[in-house]
Amino acid sequence: MMDHSSLMDVYGADCRRSVFRHIRAYLEKKTADLPFEMKKCVVDYPYRRGKAVRPTMTMLFSDAFGADHESALKVAAAFQLLEDWGLGRDDLLDGGVLRRGRPSLHLLYGVPKAINALDMLHAYVWDMLYSYCALPPRKYRLVHDIFTETTTVTLSGQHLDVEARAIPLEKFTEEAYRNIVKKKTAFYTGAVPGLLGAALAGRKSCLGGIRRFGAMLGESFQIMDDVLDVENDGTGRFGKIPGNDIVEGKRTMVVLEALRVLRPRERRELANFYALAPEEKRPKQVAVMRLRILRSGAPSLCRQKARKISAAALRVFEKDLAQKMKPPYGDLIREFVLRLASREM
Amino acid sequence: MMDHSSLMDVYGADCRRSVFRHIRAYLEKKTADLPFEMKKCVVDYPYRRGKAVRPTMTMLFSDAFGADHESALKVAAAFQLLEDWGLGRDDLLDGGVLRRGRPSLHLLYGVPKAINALDMLHAYVWDMLYSYCALPPRKYRLVHDIFTETTTVTLSGQHLDVEARAIPLEKFTEEAYRNIVKKKTAFYTGAVPGLLGAALAGRKSCLGGIRRFGAMLGESFQIMDDVLDVENDGTGRFGKIPGNDIVEGKRTMVVLEALRVLRPRERRELANFYALAPEEKRPKQVAVMRLRILRSGAPSLCRQKARKISAAALRVFEKDLAQKMKPPYGDLIREFVLRLASREM
Repeated sequence: MMDHSSLMDVYGADCRRSVFRHIRAYLEKKTADLPFEMKKCVVDYPYRRGKAVRPTMTMLFSDAFGADHESALKVAAAFQLLEDWGLGRDDLLDGGVLRRGRPSLHLLYGVPKAINALDMLHAYVWDMLYSYCALPPRKYRLVHDIFTETTTVTLSGQHLDVEARAIPLEKFTEEAYRNIVKKKTAFYTGAVPGLLGAALAGRKSCLGGIRRFGAMLGESFQIMDDVLDVENDGTGRFGKIPGNDIVEGKRTMVVLEALRVLRPRERRELANFYALAPEEKRPKQVAVMRLRILRSGAPSLCRQKARKISAAALRVFEKDLAQKMKPPYGDLIREFVLRLASREM
Repeated sequence: MMDHSSLMDVYGADCRRSVFRHIRAYLEKKTADLPFEMKKCVVDYPYRRGKAVRPTMTMLFSDAFGADHESALKVAAAFQLLEDWGLGRDDLLDGGVLRRGRPSLHLLYGVPKAINALDMLHAYVWDMLYSYCALPPRKYRLVHDIFTETTTVTLSGQHLDVEARAIPLEKFTEEAYRNIVKKKTAFYTGAVPGLLGAALAGRKSCLGGIRRFGAMLGESFQIMDDVLDVENDGTGRFGKIPGNDIVEGKRTMVVLEALRVLRPRERRELANFYALAPEEKRPKQVAVMRLRILRSGAPSLCRQKARKISAAALRVFEKDLAQKMKPPYGDLIREFVLRLASREM
């Protein structure tokens, strides 16, 4: 018998393959009559194929609660499409230049065509969920409501994030950070996959536990994402430019921690640099600031924080969710959470 | 008894009131938990209240074919919300500065917050159609598919329009114009209202006739829109700045006709001016070009064209649709088409 780690590898690879097979099946048919370049632009991000982390988690919960596997795969694929759309608009709004190792959509096609294609992709998300997934009406209602909540919460977080970038870095607080992250990333990354799985299996009693578990898992994921961004020196497979968050002026936990521990002069320099527009930030200065944050000790403080939060998430999991799950999925989810929290996936 | 013109006035005013009542009922509840400024931005265009031309036409067809009136009003309201979203993204993509007499969304809130709010509005369109309209599953499927087709066709037209603005004005053809208009405006303005009405009444046999009728009605509407834009001197209630299409560099029928009749030197000047970026176009020069187009005789040539096309639309209406309608809706639709074609609404 395989150990949980190998089983997780096989299970994850299988989910990823199936999810992209469904996305391709849906998009190839739907985009057939689009203008040539528009089609290319619409399928660009989806066909770059992400790691399918969230759809895999959706499938783990769905299988753990005993939902129909094939039907859940289609919903997981629509959820991946929602993410592909979200990444495109994130890059557009944040001025991201590299995604999954390639130039971002608006750099390849220009802003107007990118916006237009992203709007098309957004409409496809709702259509794929309804037409392609073809759920029974009662299941569709539950899943539709989760997708609507996901969009509402995530875009609310995005709005708060845009507002926050107008606040001087030195006045930005950990409380503001947590409020943004709770909405912009944590709900969608940590809670939604479980909510979808439980909804598909008709397990309404688990939804509260999943929300609590997911909020913590998602927050620890984002804190680790902040750390990885500052640690990225361009040699790994992170798929973004080194110092990406610094260029975008993103308010992250690792920069908050760095501000706390840096000396006054360095702190002021970092805050002033953050206040520049992205195009004013010369790569050399970005590299200096990145190293300053890296050496401040902030990354290891953040890792501790993230570990603590994901441990709390696992306690909720054990208390409220694990005993309601079919084997071996409880074990697989534990394995998945550890990988996600340490960002080995 | 009222004549058809007065009856149309009463009917139109009633539709408009009901549509906005439904939009408000839906949005007030849904946006309650959004960040304060985001909510303001999301409801901004919907609460400016357009003329509700398309929802009124939806109701005319729906009543003419005998669909449930109250249920159709909700779908017509979701369709108005789709338009409110579309206008916001149009203004963003085309650099429009004034909408319904007020500054456009991205000017009021900045581009990132406007994009974010428009994405929220787009998600609300799908949610309103599904959750608020609460149609029986079989009806929902038909209406969902029409909304998906509307988005696909309209955004395809938008893509072609963006592509066309990169083509020198002198090389732009009437064929290219008609292909863009067919997708970007005509389908959504002329055909979709009728398709929705017929779908809600379960009249599948009328769909083909509505498509033919609507394509022509929509094209004549757009040609008249092009004329009104060049005739707008800011004193009427058009709600846009004078010379708006010239500033945006929009490829319109009236500018195509003007190019055809102007002398070579004037033609070259107009084409060169069109090629400038919007911010390079000084208001004084815009005014000169607007008067040049106005005096070229192009507007009256376009009016003739539009009249001919809407007359052809009415012939399709008489042949394929009128006899399948309940009185007095056939007469009201004739009245509506005449008003729409002459742009008295």
